[in-house]
Amino acid sequence: MSILITGVAGFIGCNLAKRLANEGNIVLGFDNLSRGTLQNLTVIENAANFHFVEADCADRPSFLAKTKAFHDKFPITEVWHLAANSDIPAGVNDANVDLQDTFMTTFNVLEVMKVLDIKLLAFASSSAVYGDHGAQSISEVSGPLLPLSNYGAMKLASEAAISAAAEGFLHRAFIYRFPNVIGVPATHGVLLDFVNKLKASPGLLNVLGDGTQQKAYLHVDDLLEGMLQIRRRATEKVAVYNLGAGDAGVSVRNIAEAVVASVSPSAKISYGAENRGWVGDVPKFQYCLDKLMKLGWTPKLDSKLAIKRAIAEIVEQEITRK
Amino acid sequence: MSILITGVAGFIGCNLAKRLANEGNIVLGFDNLSRGTLQNLTVIENAANFHFVEADCADRPSFLAKTKAFHDKFPITEVWHLAANSDIPAGVNDANVDLQDTFMTTFNVLEVMKVLDIKLLAFASSSAVYGDHGAQSISEVSGPLLPLSNYGAMKLASEAAISAAAEGFLHRAFIYRFPNVIGVPATHGVLLDFVNKLKASPGLLNVLGDGTQQKAYLHVDDLLEGMLQIRRRATEKVAVYNLGAGDAGVSVRNIAEAVVASVSPSAKISYGAENRGWVGDVPKFQYCLDKLMKLGWTPKLDSKLAIKRAIAEIVEQEITRK
Repeated sequence: MSILITGVAGFIGCNLAKRLANEGNIVLGFDNLSRGTLQNLTVIENAANFHFVEADCADRPSFLAKTKAFHDKFPITEVWHLAANSDIPAGVNDANVDLQDTFMTTFNVLEVMKVLDIKLLAFASSSAVYGDHGAQSISEVSGPLLPLSNYGAMKLASEAAISAAAEGFLHRAFIYRFPNVIGVPATHGVLLDFVNKLKASPGLLNVLGDGTQQKAYLHVDDLLEGMLQIRRRATEKVAVYNLGAGDAGVSVRNIAEAVVASVSPSAKISYGAENRGWVGDVPKFQYCLDKLMKLGWTPKLDSKLAIKRAIAEIVEQEITRK
Repeated sequence: MSILITGVAGFIGCNLAKRLANEGNIVLGFDNLSRGTLQNLTVIENAANFHFVEADCADRPSFLAKTKAFHDKFPITEVWHLAANSDIPAGVNDANVDLQDTFMTTFNVLEVMKVLDIKLLAFASSSAVYGDHGAQSISEVSGPLLPLSNYGAMKLASEAAISAAAEGFLHRAFIYRFPNVIGVPATHGVLLDFVNKLKASPGLLNVLGDGTQQKAYLHVDDLLEGMLQIRRRATEKVAVYNLGAGDAGVSVRNIAEAVVASVSPSAKISYGAENRGWVGDVPKFQYCLDKLMKLGWTPKLDSKLAIKRAIAEIVEQEITRK
């Protein structure tokens, strides 16, 4: 099988590429390297089946030409579309960021797949499509979908375009609603932020918000297992699945304390007054994972253990190795 | 109050403009006249408060300039955004049609409102955002949202962008999920199609599909009453409402028979084999309207009466008057 991964030089993309290549697939990886890095790709350097091409999915003609050149030699049977803006606050300030990088990339993926007659798409969507449902457990049938950020909005727009394409030319679509995913190579997120803040100022950790925000976190290894399990077992034409740890999550306060304990045990922690870190952030959030668990998947690590492991990995990445 | 209506020269736009202008509002109407017509605007020719400008909301710089020119004289406090592709099959064949005309128009409306500091948006969404929920009654919290057409997909994408904007600069948003709306000036749809087919060939009516498709229909006068009731009474920051007749609907077969009885009683009716008229069409569909009815609204006409009245109006438009 020959598989195209977009956004391959990002955190999840490079881990996915490594996994799919090691399973014996020919993997073509695209990235425009605007947020992903060649450094991230070193995790897959040993995979003989992996081919990287610098390509911008927002530029449709060039994206099509580069895909076609590869497709002519190794017919692509699947696209795993992960390319997106990963800087949510940037997209809140300027809606054009997520329009281009989160939505138009998806729209163009579909157009390219239609032209080249590629029938299977796996898509990295997000819990951000749901918006704020308070303390309610969120399942795949929960509504209304009222995203708070342009990132969440353009992920939902992408899902919608994929759904319509599945009524047309697509044979199968897998829509993965990602939770907060942690692990390495860490490129953004609260753990990396806290580790680097402490590295710069070992005596004090300043936390945005009051620290009561509570979310579940999934380790990237569990995420990949879940994605592949859905790919193998789901039977729906358009398979929409929540992916997550399934527990009540961990508060920012607990995360701050865990990072401090690991990096700089004597540091003080200072909190803000609001229960939100930024516009578009959802303060509390809990996933119902019954649908995914019926496919025989459970995460190996709950949120607390995932955070513990990811902190160790990020400390290794940011401090020990540097 | 000064109100901007986009898509004002379409079927619903011109009726809305007449209504809002007659209530004493200053109404600015934009249309690119690609599907709407100046002929449609004759229904509002007596409204002294109405100002028409030919403008394409998909062209952001020109859209902004034309809105600003008016806004500087009559500060706009509300936008009612109705501009969209109305040719669903065209958008199924080419996703770029609904990308530009259904989604980018909304995206640009939001960008223009942000620049000009206009805080209230009323948006014509669609039952097409839901996709096929079988015989299940569809409420505003029903999910998942898996639209079948690019039209439905880009309406859902628009809702998502509006929701995110309401977390940012918008103060209020009204999202109206329209049903099948009928009345005059009829510009497209099954009634106009049947009337014109019989006008061209009085002996035979050819029906796409097997005629079992069943949908509810709302008369445009009831639709406008519902929209205004929601505008007056809804309290949510982002108010999402189904609008419809609330009954089980009328089959295409019954509609065909009613049009034949009215236009050409001796005509034979011939049906297709499938239960769908086109890709993206939802064969059966029922709305739950509890949320809207709690605001004190009920339609004056059920689906059957709405069809009866609309057939009479369309016959007058297409045959008697011509």
